[in-house]
Amino acid sequence: MREGGVDAVHVTIAYHETFREMVLNLEAWNDRFRCHPDLILPGRWASDIDIARRTGRTAIFFGFQNPSPIEDDIGLVEIAHTLGIRFMQLTYNNQSLLATGCYEAEDPGLTRMGRAVIAEMNRVGLVIDMSHSADRSTLEAAEASTRPIVISHANPHDWHPARRNKRADVIRAVTERGGMLGFSLYPHHLKDGSACSLQSFCEMIARTADLVGPRHLGLGTDLCQDQPHSVVDWMRVGRWTKQTDYGEGSATQPGFPRMPGWFQDNRDFGAIERGLRDTGMAEDDIHGIMGRNWYVFFEDNFAPLG
Amino acid sequence: MREGGVDAVHVTIAYHETFREMVLNLEAWNDRFRCHPDLILPGRWASDIDIARRTGRTAIFFGFQNPSPIEDDIGLVEIAHTLGIRFMQLTYNNQSLLATGCYEAEDPGLTRMGRAVIAEMNRVGLVIDMSHSADRSTLEAAEASTRPIVISHANPHDWHPARRNKRADVIRAVTERGGMLGFSLYPHHLKDGSACSLQSFCEMIARTADLVGPRHLGLGTDLCQDQPHSVVDWMRVGRWTKQTDYGEGSATQPGFPRMPGWFQDNRDFGAIERGLRDTGMAEDDIHGIMGRNWYVFFEDNFAPLG
Repeated sequence: MREGGVDAVHVTIAYHETFREMVLNLEAWNDRFRCHPDLILPGRWASDIDIARRTGRTAIFFGFQNPSPIEDDIGLVEIAHTLGIRFMQLTYNNQSLLATGCYEAEDPGLTRMGRAVIAEMNRVGLVIDMSHSADRSTLEAAEASTRPIVISHANPHDWHPARRNKRADVIRAVTERGGMLGFSLYPHHLKDGSACSLQSFCEMIARTADLVGPRHLGLGTDLCQDQPHSVVDWMRVGRWTKQTDYGEGSATQPGFPRMPGWFQDNRDFGAIERGLRDTGMAEDDIHGIMGRNWYVFFEDNFAPLG
Repeated sequence: MREGGVDAVHVTIAYHETFREMVLNLEAWNDRFRCHPDLILPGRWASDIDIARRTGRTAIFFGFQNPSPIEDDIGLVEIAHTLGIRFMQLTYNNQSLLATGCYEAEDPGLTRMGRAVIAEMNRVGLVIDMSHSADRSTLEAAEASTRPIVISHANPHDWHPARRNKRADVIRAVTERGGMLGFSLYPHHLKDGSACSLQSFCEMIARTADLVGPRHLGLGTDLCQDQPHSVVDWMRVGRWTKQTDYGEGSATQPGFPRMPGWFQDNRDFGAIERGLRDTGMAEDDIHGIMGRNWYVFFEDNFAPLG
């Protein structure tokens, strides 16, 4: 991350964990903060990114990919924010207590608890993330939320029609209300997968900027650098099935997919910046997409209301 | 509290709760903060007392009377501090995983985990409270801790030889290392119980100040104003016995004892201030005992080390 100039990262702190299990994950991160104060610091506010930059470190911001850590208890939304959580996906592929995931056959939209939790997330400053949600649920969340919401990691469906990529009207519903789309580098979200070219990826970004403007776009790499195979099992299967579910993978490719050659790991952000420059995009827009847009979003959306 | 000029209070957030149950108690307080922002605010730092004073409110600081919420997991010490907990008793009357309570027949002193947890509490800024601990455990905690510890609510055993009151050498071991003793108004800790006179109580304070100096003394009322009977059951019995344990009460007096006439509730702090003045104590020492000494202690002892 230091070599790649990554001042801040959004880290998954829960896929399917209960509240107590998620706290165990926070404890493991507390140990990392204690053992590596020269490299990382806890990220709570946009100003922590300034501190990270000034001191040559990376600020670690936490997000839930699933609302499982709040269990059936809306009071845990505020507790999660107090513990430093800043993003929560309302669903992770499957139906949750709050909304519908993008792998379900039917999407009946936000649940009663979903609407209550959105209001509470707005109140305390926990950002709604619909990356793994189905379309109707996402549109309803964008509408119901009084603060901007995000799709932290996905790409346009027009470019690569993966189930996790988002249709233009869904992207627009999020960005036109001040929300953010983070472009994913997970090969299953890329045109031609691991063989996707840097040019194709960057032209897709430039075309999206033409459509929705450059201010509400950033990176959300979905990078799983050095994660063991057990993580991909846990994220796909959790405890919700007795079968093997391959998610976006398959029986012949069950593990993490191979990253594109031009984005192997955190050292390679410079390649994306150069690729964007090659599309002819304005320098200021490139800086926004490479980080400043997320910084501004963090500034506006992590504090409690009132 | 507003009538009594109480700018800050140390609230019990757990007696026997697991971590998750303690979090439910925090959630209930979050609801109170949300519903009564004109009266109370969360207390995290000494500076919150300044805010409370300036805005005519009371800052609510949280403490555990028992280490049960950290379960067998030292990582929960830092999590508790992040959640705003500022005091933790190493024991509540019984043996704990950390040390021995004052109702046990034997006191073998700090456990292995007890020593590890003291070091972690020192590191993160969670204050060690030995109010309900046995003497040897308390002396060993005062010695093992690199930061001052407290007896937040008890009185000198010389004045009233209750099991919960503290011998002179125990009080001295705490105060001579910069720690605090908070004088209790719980009738079982008072000479003559509910019939204790204001004069007797205040002269006891003045005599303690003569012995250990006035700077490390304050109030720790143990006031249970408007608490239902269920609270006294939970605090005494928890889930640790199938019998009825009356604690400091008895079968004929099973509930909360009647408060002394001169200290019925939070409105009556002025009486204590006047009583201290009647002992001839210096005005500056009285101000210290009525609140400033705790304020200074809060300033020095809630922040993480380094």
